[in-house]
Amino acid sequence: MIRVAIIGAAGLSGVELLHWFERHPSVQVVTITSAKYQGQQLKEVFPQFHRSTLRFENHHTPLNCEVAFLAIPNQASLELVPQLLRQKIKVIDLSGVYRIPEVSLFEKYYQLSHSSPALIQQAVFGLPEIYRNKMKEAVLIANPGCYPTGALLGILPAQEFLEDLSSAPIIDAKSGVSGAGGRVEDDSTNYMTVNENFKAYKVFTHQHQPEIEYYLHQNTGYRFESGSLLFTPHLLPLSRGILSTIYLRFHSPISPAKMRERYEQFAQQQPFVTVLAQGQMPDLKMVQHTNQCYIGLETDEGHKNWIIITVIDNLVKGAAGQAIQNMNLMFGLEEQSGLV
Amino acid sequence: MIRVAIIGAAGLSGVELLHWFERHPSVQVVTITSAKYQGQQLKEVFPQFHRSTLRFENHHTPLNCEVAFLAIPNQASLELVPQLLRQKIKVIDLSGVYRIPEVSLFEKYYQLSHSSPALIQQAVFGLPEIYRNKMKEAVLIANPGCYPTGALLGILPAQEFLEDLSSAPIIDAKSGVSGAGGRVEDDSTNYMTVNENFKAYKVFTHQHQPEIEYYLHQNTGYRFESGSLLFTPHLLPLSRGILSTIYLRFHSPISPAKMRERYEQFAQQQPFVTVLAQGQMPDLKMVQHTNQCYIGLETDEGHKNWIIITVIDNLVKGAAGQAIQNMNLMFGLEEQSGLV
Amino acid sequence: MIRVAIIGAAGLSGVELLHWFERHPSVQVVTITSAKYQGQQLKEVFPQFHRSTLRFENHHTPLNCEVAFLAIPNQASLELVPQLLRQKIKVIDLSGVYRIPEVSLFEKYYQLSHSSPALIQQAVFGLPEIYRNKMKEAVLIANPGCYPTGALLGILPAQEFLEDLSSAPIIDAKSGVSGAGGRVEDDSTNYMTVNENFKAYKVFTHQHQPEIEYYLHQNTGYRFESGSLLFTPHLLPLSRGILSTIYLRFHSPISPAKMRERYEQFAQQQPFVTVLAQGQMPDLKMVQHTNQCYIGLETDEGHKNWIIITVIDNLVKGAAGQAIQNMNLMFGLEEQSGLV
Amino acid sequence: MIRVAIIGAAGLSGVELLHWFERHPSVQVVTITSAKYQGQQLKEVFPQFHRSTLRFENHHTPLNCEVAFLAIPNQASLELVPQLLRQKIKVIDLSGVYRIPEVSLFEKYYQLSHSSPALIQQAVFGLPEIYRNKMKEAVLIANPGCYPTGALLGILPAQEFLEDLSSAPIIDAKSGVSGAGGRVEDDSTNYMTVNENFKAYKVFTHQHQPEIEYYLHQNTGYRFESGSLLFTPHLLPLSRGILSTIYLRFHSPISPAKMRERYEQFAQQQPFVTVLAQGQMPDLKMVQHTNQCYIGLETDEGHKNWIIITVIDNLVKGAAGQAIQNMNLMFGLEEQSGLV
Repeated sequence: MIRVAIIGAAGLSGVELLHWFERHPSVQVVTITSAKYQGQQLKEVFPQFHRSTLRFENHHTPLNCEVAFLAIPNQASLELVPQLLRQKIKVIDLSGVYRIPEVSLFEKYYQLSHSSPALIQQAVFGLPEIYRNKMKEAVLIANPGCYPTGALLGILPAQEFLEDLSSAPIIDAKSGVSGAGGRVEDDSTNYMTVNENFKAYKVFTHQHQPEIEYYLHQNTGYRFESGSLLFTPHLLPLSRGILSTIYLRFHSPISPAKMRERYEQFAQQQPFVTVLAQGQMPDLKMVQHTNQCYIGLETDEGHKNWIIITVIDNLVKGAAGQAIQNMNLMFGLEEQSGLV
Repeated sequence: MIRVAIIGAAGLSGVELLHWFERHPSVQVVTITSAKYQGQQLKEVFPQFHRSTLRFENHHTPLNCEVAFLAIPNQASLELVPQLLRQKIKVIDLSGVYRIPEVSLFEKYYQLSHSSPALIQQAVFGLPEIYRNKMKEAVLIANPGCYPTGALLGILPAQEFLEDLSSAPIIDAKSGVSGAGGRVEDDSTNYMTVNENFKAYKVFTHQHQPEIEYYLHQNTGYRFESGSLLFTPHLLPLSRGILSTIYLRFHSPISPAKMRERYEQFAQQQPFVTVLAQGQMPDLKMVQHTNQCYIGLETDEGHKNWIIITVIDNLVKGAAGQAIQNMNLMFGLEEQSGLV
Repeated sequence: MIRVAIIGAAGLSGVELLHWFERHPSVQVVTITSAKYQGQQLKEVFPQFHRSTLRFENHHTPLNCEVAFLAIPNQASLELVPQLLRQKIKVIDLSGVYRIPEVSLFEKYYQLSHSSPALIQQAVFGLPEIYRNKMKEAVLIANPGCYPTGALLGILPAQEFLEDLSSAPIIDAKSGVSGAGGRVEDDSTNYMTVNENFKAYKVFTHQHQPEIEYYLHQNTGYRFESGSLLFTPHLLPLSRGILSTIYLRFHSPISPAKMRERYEQFAQQQPFVTVLAQGQMPDLKMVQHTNQCYIGLETDEGHKNWIIITVIDNLVKGAAGQAIQNMNLMFGLEEQSGLV
Repeated sequence: MIRVAIIGAAGLSGVELLHWFERHPSVQVVTITSAKYQGQQLKEVFPQFHRSTLRFENHHTPLNCEVAFLAIPNQASLELVPQLLRQKIKVIDLSGVYRIPEVSLFEKYYQLSHSSPALIQQAVFGLPEIYRNKMKEAVLIANPGCYPTGALLGILPAQEFLEDLSSAPIIDAKSGVSGAGGRVEDDSTNYMTVNENFKAYKVFTHQHQPEIEYYLHQNTGYRFESGSLLFTPHLLPLSRGILSTIYLRFHSPISPAKMRERYEQFAQQQPFVTVLAQGQMPDLKMVQHTNQCYIGLETDEGHKNWIIITVIDNLVKGAAGQAIQNMNLMFGLEEQSGLV
């Protein structure tokens, strides 16, 4: 059994990790922490874990584990990760602070100064679909953002065509509340604000824009101007799921058979990616409470305009599930172990 | 034009008052206050009021008006109401502090000590269906709670039968979020907590229980033991509306025709109460965004068990609309003026 | 591996069975049927089953299996069950037709004439918490209604006190859409009808009333007059979950310690029943997507009035999960096998 | 008083018309029709109209009115409109059949053959923001689609810049259920399908695409290739509102001050269009239950990429409200009469 700690176990991603670990055959959660609930039993605060004997510790409790999952705010991750690595504890960090190797971009979008930039180089970006082979050696995995997961899985299979794009991709993304602020205690995710409502937010300024752009550049030959990829997040009145509508426009037509073949080839190598049959487009119900990503493709008569739609559960493939998938690879387990 | 101030105009009830006053032919809102937004324009904070030139003041700004609506927390009302009355400004108070004449009950349920108990005697309980004639002389109207409005309008028409009750009434009430905490910035009304969820809260301890009981005692011959009326509030995953399922059990059968006649007689004297036809039961859509109360009645074969269901919009008939109805009476206007 | 058929696999309960069987270690689904989708692949119609190779057959396809789950309308169950039993196929029937041994009551509430009344006597009522020992010998299990499951689990633990009830129990129940009509293609469960709405339905006439009453009578000494137990179902604007608010009023006080002890004793013998700690009341989130029933208890100062609240997921403990729990017992498997 | 008939008064748009006409000072609704409810009283079917004495007639009842609003399916409008015009009754048609003057495009997208193409030329496209002056003379107004209303009001103010677009506009639109199928009695708008879900639909094939394109071509100098404007509708899990995220990419930068000026100039001439202040983006709550359109603008650092977001209530500005606005103009009333 792998001994696991969850730092920040009372937030949405933390609770989701606990949910999946209850079903994981090779993991024992030995420590959970929470600033708000320290001292209380897990089952008092979240009665759905009625069989658990765990109790919340504070974030700085000594750990006796092989790997720690961090589901805490960015600033807290910046402080804690170097300490854990010094203690030879492997880290899977769900915050955004070790994802983008360009410190200046990080600091611009996150409005934070980076106190451990050397570690970014050491971190592996935790998208197993492209960095699977690196996970086994990793000591620090930067778990991807939920939006970048949905966007990259939608665009990367088309990589050989990207050089022919006539304009940089547009990603019009729509997220449930848990992927867009979650249980923050302010007005913006209050029920009265979100229910029966819909809006775009952080237009042109969301911190996931450079993350998407950076890993597209890294993994394709295509070089569009920095900032030209457009990413617009919106807030859906529902709890979980992200749907990304991706617009790709090419100079020349691409044959539908060829495009579809590339996506299917990509998916065949991935345990958690499925391409829908021609004529089908995905919806959020297909993936909620699973680690799956579903992809649908459509083109117009001229075959120059393509719309790719991906769906994931932001708390699973976009956070906790992907983190566990990465842990499975890190420890040489079956990639799907404990996940559906 | 009646000059009106709204103290606490940025909360849910305050915004609702502003909404209705935009359509009221005889009212001019001259002052609005908000602790949070003082100094800002109304239309900046709430763009739906794009035609307004009002600006938020602080709660203690000097007022030049005939009547002030208070939509602020209980403690704040306790402080402000005596001052306003000394300035000869009439007050319609939407808080709970002047509703229950028994100070000990008030203090038990509200966990507050009452600093102006003499004023309670002076206050008129703002349920126009029973105290219509008192409104014209009133200088202080204690606007009823949303739950008591729905409960009392469901039980009072049956008053002549209440002495025969075999057990005290049970009111199983279900409220949308705006009637049960609203835009409070804590976890309990966060979207992730409320959405796709349902629960009872404050079981046996809700502060509206004694308000319902007191005004039933006042207006009917029936005397059940204090505390024996059961009132259970629940939180619905929707924005507005309260449905109250009221159980009345009698020793002897009551003829359906006779019971229905009493309800219809009651409703005929009320501009905002409608009794549904036999076989129809109300739902929330019938009353949302209106000042209406709809009532449905059903009995079983023995005619001893009755279920009365009432629906209101908690922000309108349960708060702002009822306050305006009371203001209309206070100033001798048409009772329905500006309302639907 | 137990070979299983699902008759009516495209409805809400059928899809839920498929969901759980994907995770069950001892079951192989060999046949699925659907009138609407016969001939189509499961994964075409419901892409979440992308690994499945099953194809929908018609309801009358020959079966080669040990047990059939029926998730079809009442009339269809009446026709099919006798045929399956003659073929020596065990049946777990999710319809309502074999639950109530009094045919006259059945026919009154279901508005159907019963074509195989002899089978009702043979059927075991599939509430394992009270009939666990009968499941192993059963050839026909009548899986309980979702409302009766929530109601009975809330009342039965208090059975020794029921003779002292001063009035028959009141069950004010609230169900998500999947427990109250589901994917029926008419106006009543259309999104525009249900969303932001709430209502009671079938007041005094719901077919689950006699089912609750019958099994209370069977399992307690208490005899209240037939029809005097009041059960009022309501429709919540959410997908899954039933919360039952149960009012029990006694002649004499019951000590909270004693009452709580009875509930905890009951729960200790049940793998899927949990009593919450004093002061906690359940909500739907605690049980959604699980086979659990959570129970909360509260009383007033005099200890004569008790409010018991139970929550279940109507599609799991109220339908598919309970059916699998029954199958586990029927085939001598671990009761919790494949369930959470 | 203008005498009005509503053909198809029990559908979502029909009920919305009735709602607004209850508040309109110059209109008397004299006839309402419904295939489903003919013979029944309006207030029986929709208790919110409890003051009304109207009764549903069948669609072919003789009319004694000055103007008929048609809120019936496309095929039914094709049959009825010529008859009404022959009877000298003015028509405001909410269906899609008289909007697009190119019959071949109409027939391709609507999968219907057009039986009265001559009337299309006579019809005035009912977007008052551009065709206000034509309404007074019109005998047939083709009320615009809800999506085209939101899209055109977002793009037309930028018309002088459109020739410099580097690619045709992309309109990623998201609609509540009432704008995307409404109370159709099939699976697609069932609560269990829509709730907690989100999807795109009719990708590249929605019948509003040519409507948007045609009226952009008509009203701007810009000529993009037919079919190159991309319009993708999505279904939101909420009842009312459409938000359109419009991507405009230009060859050359456009100064934010200049762009904003054009939008503000446009809005100043319109009673129901508001441009939000810099830094503000609209949400659906701003416009629900009103005839307003709110517009927000944002650009990136290079000022070549622009995101325009518009919101409307699809049942008001996208249907019934706009129809009444058109009627007001047709009959020389104040344009805002009876609307908010």
